Amino acid sequence: MTNQIPPEQTAREEDLIARVLESFENTPDERLKYLLRELMKHLHAFVRTVRLTEPEWNAAIEFLTRTGHITTQHRQEFVLLSDVLGISMQTVAVNNEVYENATEATVFGPFFVKDAPLIENGGDMSGGAPGEPAWIEGTIKGVDGKPIPGARIEVWEADAEGLYDVQHDDRRVYGRAHLYADEKGEFRFWGLLPTPYPIAYDGPVGDLLKATGRSPYRPSHLHFMVTAPGYRTLVTHIFVRGDEQLDRGDAVFGVKESLIYDWTHHSAAEPTPDGRDLQGRQWARTRFDIVLAPGQAVGYAALME
Amino acid sequence: MTNQIPPEQTAREEDLIARVLESFENTPDERLKYLLRELMKHLHAFVRTVRLTEPEWNAAIEFLTRTGHITTQHRQEFVLLSDVLGISMQTVAVNNEVYENATEATVFGPFFVKDAPLIENGGDMSGGAPGEPAWIEGTIKGVDGKPIPGARIEVWEADAEGLYDVQHDDRRVYGRAHLYADEKGEFRFWGLLPTPYPIAYDGPVGDLLKATGRSPYRPSHLHFMVTAPGYRTLVTHIFVRGDEQLDRGDAVFGVKESLIYDWTHHSAAEPTPDGRDLQGRQWARTRFDIVLAPGQAVGYAALME
Repeated sequence: MTNQIPPEQTAREEDLIARVLESFENTPDERLKYLLRELMKHLHAFVRTVRLTEPEWNAAIEFLTRTGHITTQHRQEFVLLSDVLGISMQTVAVNNEVYENATEATVFGPFFVKDAPLIENGGDMSGGAPGEPAWIEGTIKGVDGKPIPGARIEVWEADAEGLYDVQHDDRRVYGRAHLYADEKGEFRFWGLLPTPYPIAYDGPVGDLLKATGRSPYRPSHLHFMVTAPGYRTLVTHIFVRGDEQLDRGDAVFGVKESLIYDWTHHSAAEPTPDGRDLQGRQWARTRFDIVLAPGQAVGYAALME
Repeated sequence: MTNQIPPEQTAREEDLIARVLESFENTPDERLKYLLRELMKHLHAFVRTVRLTEPEWNAAIEFLTRTGHITTQHRQEFVLLSDVLGISMQTVAVNNEVYENATEATVFGPFFVKDAPLIENGGDMSGGAPGEPAWIEGTIKGVDGKPIPGARIEVWEADAEGLYDVQHDDRRVYGRAHLYADEKGEFRFWGLLPTPYPIAYDGPVGDLLKATGRSPYRPSHLHFMVTAPGYRTLVTHIFVRGDEQLDRGDAVFGVKESLIYDWTHHSAAEPTPDGRDLQGRQWARTRFDIVLAPGQAVGYAALME
C-alpha cells in the first residue's frame, strides 16, 4: 500500500473481513470452515494490499467466465489455469512430502482418462499413435527395497504431434493404457519417445501466458500413475535428458531433476529387447525404477474406481 | 500447519513459489506483474497452510467448473460468488475510501443493465412491475454542499416476487430506469417499496451457502448509481429501516448503517406528493439525500458508455 490509508478506512476494511469470517461460523464441517476462513483471509488481504480496482475486478470476473465457458468434458481450462500458476504443483508438493528415497511426484495434468485399455506386461500402450517407438522398463519397490508385485501402472502420453488422443475430435483412444507389474515387481512396455508440446493456448490461459511473456511449452514427458495397496499413490512423469525444452522451462512447473532420465537411441538394425519387428523404424529405450512411499492409495486413485 | 514439516520439504515448497514468481518476471505491464505475483503469494500460502488435499483441489476445480457452466448473459454466478465471499464488497471498500460526508458505496450486484429506459424526473421507474408504489426523492450535492444539476441517476430493483426483470424468462424490462437531477440537483421518481429476496441459490453458490449454514437472503433495497463529471461515481443501495432481514444478515455483506432509511407508509386515502392517482393502492415514501465525493467517474461508469 503506497498511500497512507486513513484509520477509519482500515477499520472499515477489517470490519468487513471479520463479518465474512463470522458468516462461516456455523459451518458443520470443521475442515470446510477452516478452508474457507483461511481462503477468505488470503483473498481479502490480496484485494486490500493491491487496492484492486473495479475494472481489474471486472477483468477477473470476465477471465473466470471465459475459463468456465471453454471448459468441456475434454478440455479442463481450470486445471490448466491451476497448472500454469503452479497451484497444481504446490498441491502435489504438500501431498507428497519428501519420504526417504521415494520417487518424486509431479503434476497430474488434464489428460488422464479412466478405463484406459489394459495391456499385458510387455505390451504396446501407443495404440498405433504416430511417434518413435520406445521401450520402457523398470521395477516397482518400496523404500525398503522390496519389490511390489502386481502394482497397477497407468501410463499416458501425447502423440508425435504433441496432442493427446482426447484432443483430437474423433474419439480415438491411443497413447494410454494400464498394466500390472509382474511377480517380481517388474514392468515393461512399448510406448513412444515423448516430444515437447505446448499446452492448449487458444483460450484464456493462453492469453494469460501471452500477456506475461511466458511460453506454453512443456518438455517431453511420459505420465505414470502407480497404485498398490499399502503405498502412497504416485502420480509422476519421466522427462528426457537432453530435451532442449528442459532448459527453456516448463509451463506448469512439473520438472524435477530426479525425474529426468537418459533415453538411449537405437537404429532400426539393432535388435529390440523383446524381438519385436519394428519394420525398419529406429527406436529408443529407458529404464525407470520406481520407489513407492508407504501410505494409502488416496487422491487421484479414486479416479480409477 | 499442525505437523512438523521437514526442512527439505519446506525448501521444496518455497523453491516452487520462487519459480512461479520468477515466471512472471517478463510481464510487460508492471501492474499486471504486481497483481499476479501478489495473488500467487497468497494462493500458494493458502495451499501450504491448509495442506490442501488432492480431493479438496478436485472439489475446487469442480466447483469453479459448475460456476462457469451455469453462468450466462443473464446469470453471473462468478459475481454472485464474489458477492457472498465479501470480495465484491471489499473491492467497493478499497475503491470508495471514506471521504468526509460522502454517501457510502455498496455492492453493484449482478443485475445492472445498460441502456435502461430514460424517465422524466418525477416519472415511474417500476414499469408496471408488481409491488407497492413508493415515492423516492432527494438532492445530489458535493461534499461542499453545492447541488449537482444534471447528475445522472440509474436505479434498479426487484419486483414483489423478489426477482429482477432479467430473472424472468420473457425479456420483460421493468424495475429499472435512468433519469437526471434537475437544475437544483433534485430528483424524484416513483418506484416500488423494496422487498427482501434470496439471491439465486439453485447453483454452486447456493450449495456453498447451504454447506456453510448461511442464508441466501438479502434485506430489501433499491439500487442507485450516480454519475456526474468531476465526481466519484457512486454505486450504492438504500435499505428499509425495520426490515427484519436487516437483523438476520445480508448474504453479500452490503448493509451499512448509513444506508438504512426510514420509509413512511401511507394509506390509499392520503394524497400523493405529485397528485398521482394510485387507484386505491397504499404507498410508501422516503428521502435519500446523496453526497458525492470529488473524483473521476470511473469503474462501473464505463458500463454506461
